[in-house]
Amino acid sequence: MVEEKSVVTPWEVSGTVDYEKLIKEFGTQALDQKQLSSQKDAPPLLRRGLYFSHRDFPQWIADAEKKKTVSVVTGRGPSEKMHLGHLIPFLVAQYLQKRYGCMVYIPLSDDEKFFFKRALTQEQAEAYGEDNILDIIALGFDQQKTKIFRDFEYTTIYRYAALIAKKTTFSTAKAVFGFQGDTNIGFIFYPAVQSAHIYLPQFLHGSHRTLVPIAIDQDPYMRILRDVADGLGFIKPGAVHAKFLPGLSGNPKMSASDADNEVIFLTDTPDVVTKKINKYAFSGGKDTLAEHRAQGGNPDIDISFLYLKYLFEPEDKALAKIEKDYRSGKLLSGELKKILIDKINIFLKEHQKKKEQAKKLVSKFKLT
Amino acid sequence: MVEEKSVVTPWEVSGTVDYEKLIKEFGTQALDQKQLSSQKDAPPLLRRGLYFSHRDFPQWIADAEKKKTVSVVTGRGPSEKMHLGHLIPFLVAQYLQKRYGCMVYIPLSDDEKFFFKRALTQEQAEAYGEDNILDIIALGFDQQKTKIFRDFEYTTIYRYAALIAKKTTFSTAKAVFGFQGDTNIGFIFYPAVQSAHIYLPQFLHGSHRTLVPIAIDQDPYMRILRDVADGLGFIKPGAVHAKFLPGLSGNPKMSASDADNEVIFLTDTPDVVTKKINKYAFSGGKDTLAEHRAQGGNPDIDISFLYLKYLFEPEDKALAKIEKDYRSGKLLSGELKKILIDKINIFLKEHQKKKEQAKKLVSKFKLT
Repeated sequence: MVEEKSVVTPWEVSGTVDYEKLIKEFGTQALDQKQLSSQKDAPPLLRRGLYFSHRDFPQWIADAEKKKTVSVVTGRGPSEKMHLGHLIPFLVAQYLQKRYGCMVYIPLSDDEKFFFKRALTQEQAEAYGEDNILDIIALGFDQQKTKIFRDFEYTTIYRYAALIAKKTTFSTAKAVFGFQGDTNIGFIFYPAVQSAHIYLPQFLHGSHRTLVPIAIDQDPYMRILRDVADGLGFIKPGAVHAKFLPGLSGNPKMSASDADNEVIFLTDTPDVVTKKINKYAFSGGKDTLAEHRAQGGNPDIDISFLYLKYLFEPEDKALAKIEKDYRSGKLLSGELKKILIDKINIFLKEHQKKKEQAKKLVSKFKLT
Repeated sequence: MVEEKSVVTPWEVSGTVDYEKLIKEFGTQALDQKQLSSQKDAPPLLRRGLYFSHRDFPQWIADAEKKKTVSVVTGRGPSEKMHLGHLIPFLVAQYLQKRYGCMVYIPLSDDEKFFFKRALTQEQAEAYGEDNILDIIALGFDQQKTKIFRDFEYTTIYRYAALIAKKTTFSTAKAVFGFQGDTNIGFIFYPAVQSAHIYLPQFLHGSHRTLVPIAIDQDPYMRILRDVADGLGFIKPGAVHAKFLPGLSGNPKMSASDADNEVIFLTDTPDVVTKKINKYAFSGGKDTLAEHRAQGGNPDIDISFLYLKYLFEPEDKALAKIEKDYRSGKLLSGELKKILIDKINIFLKEHQKKKEQAKKLVSKFKLT
């Protein structure tokens, strides 16, 4: 992992990311990790620090606990098939829905990806959208309380986006997103569409608190959209911000833009998973068996351990034992990898089955 | 009529307009007036020089005469109720449909007006759109061959606009439309929507020639959209450009933005029409009866005569007699106005009746 200049924008993440610094730069609040870690029903990534920052999260919780209407919006830009890193906001949305019975809206920004990716055709973006919708449904959202849509299909979003676009000057959008002369006018308009996604529950159900589980690089959209809340007569949406799930080799963000050896796709077969983890997963273990037995490994930088911690080992005691054994040298890198491989393959087998079943459910989830 | 600096943009027309100069500036072609004046079935405004410029009109005619698929698109920005000046492109579209049996698409850009007019709400723009649609249907388009839509209702237009937006950089749009930092991002996106209107027949029915009857101030949209034809695999749409119908007092363009004393609305009652024409219609007659009888009037600058010429007196002989009598002094200003008032009131009475009937036809015309 080479140290380099840190870049965190909605379109680029590189270098070593200093999350404390982002909280200050973006003007967000640190999450109360102690409180979160005590929520035994929450998914590991929420209890174990992958979410680190927020805007107005306690106010959302307070309203939810008072049984007021609250909602969650979390979306996806469908420029490729989905991988493990893409699950992060959905797992939080699902948890909040289970705990508070709230509506969840899931927009797929096929328009954003079409505008941004030069080589991506509209048909390709739409096809990825349809495929990703199956993956999202497979996660097990509540049919009665979850609405999923693509912008190029649920084009009514344009009517809502217009309300926000009229309140957003080019100067403001440029200051936040750094548009240039060669930026296409679709991409310049898109922040209004993303804002409309996040205000959609309020457009449809009136003013209430909405929470957006989101990776920290997407926060500029939150800033621009919170500014127009008053003018719309709505409550500023809140957010919880995740750190990035690192790629296999330790890149700060798992991204298929890099290469297949960085990511586990939700479509990967057991053989592929085994090969990818064994071959590419960055290890915190020592170079030789003797060294490892003597000095132990470092789980803090070990990708296999981190995936177990944030995604695949929900039992605190089991995880603590893995960590202890790895640190002591009792557990070898290959053994740690084997634990992860088995967990991922169990998850993916089930996921792939549910994804197949999801084809019959699409019409129940789609907002039209 | 005060001479002042001429301004002709899609949003502002002022000063004395030099149409010959616009042909050069905009890079269009002069229409063959001799050929047009021989088309005895064409509406007066086409036979008598209100249309003066074009792009690829002969090619459209050639295809139409070969019975190839051709279409017409002409729209309206619904920021107010409609007046006489708004009829101009629709009368041409209707003529071409009657003569060639072609499809006519009529987009109402409630989004454009919403983005551009600070005080106009989305609901107001939509309500004007619905009202204007009734006026347009009342003109008598072919139910089988005419599709009318509003952008905020037929939001599928967003999907088509996206294809054009991706090919249009901010620099290009800015160069054509002069956007500033305080321009809202909806308005920056809108040229892609207007382009999508004009390509819609080709999106829906494949590559063919489309003609756009349009006031000359809208030609910048034609320039920007013709540039992307190749990339879409479409034929560059053609256009016929109208001069502006002058306002009652002689302003270069009849516009309700000025004042009620400039325009005859399609909703005006006979009393209101009589009062407006008598009180405001700029006269080419002389100041006193004696002078007028002796020297005659000037029909070339007489608004009442011009409205008869372009809209309300289709019979060439009748018009020639009016012109001759007015020039000679035999026909007085008041008498000329009376001829126009009667013609307008006959037209409006019929129009208002048809508009009432149009309410039942809306669903047949709407594209959804």
